[in-house]
Order: sequence, then structure tokens, then C-alpha cells
Amino acid sequence: MRWVLPEYFQDVLPPEADKLEHLRRQLLDAFRAHGYQMVVPPLVEYLESLLTGAGQDLRLRTFKSVDQLSGRTLGVRADMTPQVARIDAHLLNRRGVTRLCYCGAVAHTMPATLTASREPMQLGAEIYGHAGIEADIEVIRLLNEVLRIAQVPTSRIDLSHVGLFRALMARAGLDDEAERAIFDLLQAKDVPGLNEMLGDCEEPVRSALMALPRLYGGVEVLAAARTSLPDWPEVRAALDALEAIAQALPGLPISVDLADLRGYHYHSGVVFAAYGGNAAGALALGGRYDAVGQAFGRGRPATGFSLDLRELVRGLPASDLPGAILAPADASSDLAAAVADLRGRGEIVMEALPGHDGTWREAGCDRQLVRQGDRWTVVPLVGE
Amino acid sequence: MRWVLPEYFQDVLPPEADKLEHLRRQLLDAFRAHGYQMVVPPLVEYLESLLTGAGQDLRLRTFKSVDQLSGRTLGVRADMTPQVARIDAHLLNRRGVTRLCYCGAVAHTMPATLTASREPMQLGAEIYGHAGIEADIEVIRLLNEVLRIAQVPTSRIDLSHVGLFRALMARAGLDDEAERAIFDLLQAKDVPGLNEMLGDCEEPVRSALMALPRLYGGVEVLAAARTSLPDWPEVRAALDALEAIAQALPGLPISVDLADLRGYHYHSGVVFAAYGGNAAGALALGGRYDAVGQAFGRGRPATGFSLDLRELVRGLPASDLPGAILAPADASSDLAAAVADLRGRGEIVMEALPGHDGTWREAGCDRQLVRQGDRWTVVPLVGE
Repeated sequence: MRWVLPEYFQDVLPPEADKLEHLRRQLLDAFRAHGYQMVVPPLVEYLESLLTGAGQDLRLRTFKSVDQLSGRTLGVRADMTPQVARIDAHLLNRRGVTRLCYCGAVAHTMPATLTASREPMQLGAEIYGHAGIEADIEVIRLLNEVLRIAQVPTSRIDLSHVGLFRALMARAGLDDEAERAIFDLLQAKDVPGLNEMLGDCEEPVRSALMALPRLYGGVEVLAAARTSLPDWPEVRAALDALEAIAQALPGLPISVDLADLRGYHYHSGVVFAAYGGNAAGALALGGRYDAVGQAFGRGRPATGFSLDLRELVRGLPASDLPGAILAPADASSDLAAAVADLRGRGEIVMEALPGHDGTWREAGCDRQLVRQGDRWTVVPLVGE
Repeated sequence: MRWVLPEYFQDVLPPEADKLEHLRRQLLDAFRAHGYQMVVPPLVEYLESLLTGAGQDLRLRTFKSVDQLSGRTLGVRADMTPQVARIDAHLLNRRGVTRLCYCGAVAHTMPATLTASREPMQLGAEIYGHAGIEADIEVIRLLNEVLRIAQVPTSRIDLSHVGLFRALMARAGLDDEAERAIFDLLQAKDVPGLNEMLGDCEEPVRSALMALPRLYGGVEVLAAARTSLPDWPEVRAALDALEAIAQALPGLPISVDLADLRGYHYHSGVVFAAYGGNAAGALALGGRYDAVGQAFGRGRPATGFSLDLRELVRGLPASDLPGAILAPADASSDLAAAVADLRGRGEIVMEALPGHDGTWREAGCDRQLVRQGDRWTVVPLVGE
């Protein structure tokens, strides 16, 4: 069966493909109107470039191949964010704030979740060169606007901060493996597992890590965190940043989930996850990743978000094929003019091909052009 | 140097990426207006599906990887046309004429020419289910329209017909290797090499093959071909088809090059190559490939064309970043309303972020919003 696709890869057929294209344009237009300039990084790069500043997780998710020209290992991009950081760091070379956006296919060796695609259409917006929370606030506001345009209004945006976990780990003195295990238990909110794992971990790190999975809910959680977590400068700075961001976004459904650190492997500060519509999981993930530019040799602070446009489109109501007009096979120049005029006004006009009468409705035609006297007129499609 | 890209892969930066996006939209809109429905096939498929109906050439150009889920060999698509034929044959299952279009990245292990990209952005339009020359005529006319929209007016469209070479080979009784060698010599128009290769080839095949490289020029070449080539039914049918197509396209710069058979490995009938602007090579290739649907188990005639949008955009004049308006960092609601209004009218408005005065011109701003009395006004950018 040569036409069967590998699991977790899908075709997008008409009319779904139209919806995808339409939303792609709406969102790129919104980015553009906000000053985000488009870039198109390549589908394939040297593996070490694709993984610069990223973690082991991305390495496992990347399809690899040997370059016949250089003998080096190539990868098919599994995430465009590090590519865009590379472009900011080395190609644009601007001193000031740089806003960039992108939309393209990425490929994953394994799906991220059981319902995910192995080929997300990644769409994102990033701000480089600004370390302040003003930039984080702008991208969260823009993400909210994206979900509004996509007609899956934001149900909540969970904030967290990678600095909290980093601060606790820096003082816990655990090895990388133990750190990764604790991170995974936190993501799973597995409190008994965490309790066992933290058997001989010292205070106050132990209590703080045990508290994290319970620190979720409204912004009042930030006040609770100030009493549950150690009063260290890094912890205070992280909680202050989250509080300032929440206050600057009064109209948005901001919530807090301090154990949620999905982007931990390259994120460095505030992180966020947006939920909306009927989707079970997060529709978009984002946050600050100041260290990626550094890994490319030019330290530029960075913040932004990305999402899978295929997933976002799934939430939209089903639609029919747009109705088309059938034009007869007729070489007269007044017909050509009538067809051009209709197309110029946004209509779809299909030209009849001989031998296919009876199949035009199947192709999407619901009207036809007929000559009435000395002019061409659109009438309902008959005789199909 | 982690930021160096593999040879023949490129980033597209602002403002070039805008031009690419703009042309992508214009061409997909033109396809849509002509009744071509968009499909988005996956980036990755089982290798055997990607190569169905295609030749050895495509196999060598395809990046391969092992599927961790199935253990089977996957490929990154190197050509979307067979994917779209698969969609027509197995997913849409329509009885009548089906017009499809697509635009997406493909990857090649080796560049097709020394100036080509290893990541063409393939854009194409295809008609399935119609075996007549009316469909070929429609796609050639549409291709001409594509080049007009792209502002690289067609300098010529070379026609050829795979049936001529096929008919000669069918009666020559050569093995596959000799056939491939002759094919390559024809593509290179290497007449001495061809003469040597055809040493013991019988007449009239020998003379016909020797004549092919000289059969190029205006449509009058078709009359010359009728005397140089054997008067077999398949030869007559091919020349008749080319003549009828040329006659049906009076306003177009149609020419003939009977040795040019680039798509031979899956094409089956009329083939064409369009040239325009300052590009040395063909900007678009197309033709009939009736056998691909058959290989997918459902014989559907097919004709269409595709091109590399990156290559097409290269011919456009350079452009500047579009000028943006800088909005001050100010939370007042009348500013937000003024900004939304400007964006709604197609303007780009960037919000100032603290600490970056002096860099806004670099980011593309040429005007700014200032409060004058009780209203916000756009004035030239000053103090940068």
C-alpha cells in the first residue's frame, strides 16, 4: 500500500488546506503590523547548529542524515526558534531591538504527545535584544491576539519561571541525572515520586521542590510562593517579574503554574503556556531564552512564543469547499473578459474541459456562466 | 562556526522574505481563482511512496532516515508532484477533473545545478482526470500568467514530447543502460557523442535520434520533424499534439526543442519548460505524467507544472524594509486605539521598548506617533 503515510504524518486536503493558508496569512499579517519582520530559515542545517543552545530532547527528536557534500551530519529542523536566534545573532547584527517572525514545517522523529503531529507547522514571533519584562509582556499580549484572530479565545495563560528551579538546583548540589529525574517528576506533578526522590535532599531545597507542584492557580499563588520558597535574591527576582507581568496584563486570563517548565532545556526566565478552545494541551509555548544567542557567540536576550498552526486550525469549525463558477469551453474574447472580471472580484472560475459534464458539482461548481443575448451572466448550475 | 549553513542551503532574511511571502500569496490566489484547490502533503513519507512512479534520479536526490516507529525507510520529499498524484488517486477519489495546487519546501541531497538551491520552495498546479490537450493548454496558459504576475515575463516556452523518444526506444531494442546513455547525450545535445554511441543502431531510429538535437526553434520545427522522423503513428500523434497546443496559444512565445526531455523519468507526453527574466535556466518545468496515478493503483491522466519560488523571487528588483511607525511606551487607551487604527489601515506600528532610543531607525521606523493636543499624530521620526 504505497499510499499509506507514516504514523503521525498527515495530508491536509481541500477545504482544510484553505483554512490553514487563511489563518497563516492572518497571523503573519498581524505579526507584520506589530513590526515583526519575516525570516525563512532552511529546512536542513548541520546538526550541531540546529542543536546549539538546545537540549538532549531536541537531539532525539531530530531526523539526521549525512551530507554528501561535506560528510558532516545534517538534521531536518525540529524547532525553528534556535534558527531564528542564529539569524539575529549573526546575520542581522543589529544593535537594537529586533522583532522577527516565521512560519514553516518542522519534523519530529517521535510525536511530542499521543495526539501531536510529527510535522508541526511552526509559527512564531520573537523579540531579540531586550532583557526587560516589557518585551515578555508584548509577546504574551501578541499571543493572546493570535488566539483571538484564530477564533480559539484564550482560556488561560499559565506563567512560570525557569529561574526558580535553577536557583533550587544550583544550591542542591545534585548530579545531572538526578536533576533531570526531579524535573520530569515536577512536570508530571508526581508528588509521591518526588518525595521518594528527594529522600536525602537538604532543606530548604527539599520543601521548596515539594511545594512547587502545589503552586498553581490564580495570581494569588505568587504570594503563597513567597512564603513556601526560600527568600533568596534569585527567587525574589523571579517572583517579582511574574507579578509585574501579571499586573501589566489586566484583561488577560493570566494564571500561574510554577512546576510547569516545559521549555527548560533552552529557556532561561519567564515561560508561559497558552490554552484555548477545546484543545486538551497547550496551544502555544513561549518564554525567555537569553542563553541561545550566547551559544551562537553573541549574547542577545530573547523572548517569544511559537505554536503548531495545524493544531490551531483543528479547533476551527468545518467548512465546505467555496462555490465556484463553471465557464464554458469557448475561445471568444468577451468570455475571457467576463472570466477575468469575475476572478478579479474574488470569484473562483473553472474552465470546462470536454468530456466531463456531470462532474462539475463534484469539483465545487455551484453556478455557471451562460451567454444571455450579448452578455455573459452567472446563473445557478443546471444539468449536473 | 556553528552559524555556517551547509552549501546550497540559504536563509531568507528581511526584506527578501517579504517578497517571497508576497509572491507566494499572489500565485496561490491566482491558482485559487482558476479553480485549483490547495493541498498540503507531508514533508516526510515512506521512501517507496515518495518514489512511486518516479525514477532513479529522484531516489538519489532524496534524504533518507529510518522511522523509529516502523523501522521502515523514510524520505524527506524531493518533489511534491508524486505526492499530489497520490492525493488525487487515493484520497479525493473524484470521478471528474480535479485541479490541485501546492506550495512547500522540498530538500535535495545534491543541488540540481551549480546555481540551484538544495531547498527549492516548490510551487505548482496540476490537473488530474483529463487526458486531452485542452488540459495541457490550460496549464501552459496558467504558467504564463504566473510569470506575468511574478514580473518576469515569459521569454519563451519550449515544447517537447516524451512520446517521440519512447517510440524510438521501443523499436531500437536497446538495454536500459544504453537508453539512459542516449538520453543523457540528447540532453547535453552532444551530437558527436551520440554519433559514436549509435554506431550499430539500425535505421530509421539512428537518423531520427541524430536529428532530434537539431529540431529546436520556432513552431516550424514541427514541420521539419515530420520529414526527419519516421512516419509512425506514435510519432504522428505526438507532433499533432504539439502542433495543436502551439496553435491554441497564439499570444504566447511558444518554441520547440524536441531533444529536451528533462522530466522523462515520470513524464509521459507533452513536456514544457518556461524561460523568462534574466534567469539562465528554465524557471518552470511541466508536462503530462499519466503513469504516476497508475503506479498508485488508480490510472488518472495528469498534467501540470512546478517551479522554485525562491528562484523566481531572485529575479525581482531589490527592495527596502517597509517603513514602520514607532509608538511610545504609554499605556493610555487612546494611544492603543490610535495604534490599532493604524495597523488596521495596513501600517506597521512598533511599540518602543525602554532603553533602546537611537536604534529605531535601524529597526525600520521612519515615522513616530506623538501626542499633539488631545490626539495622536504620525510625524517623521526625529532624534534618532
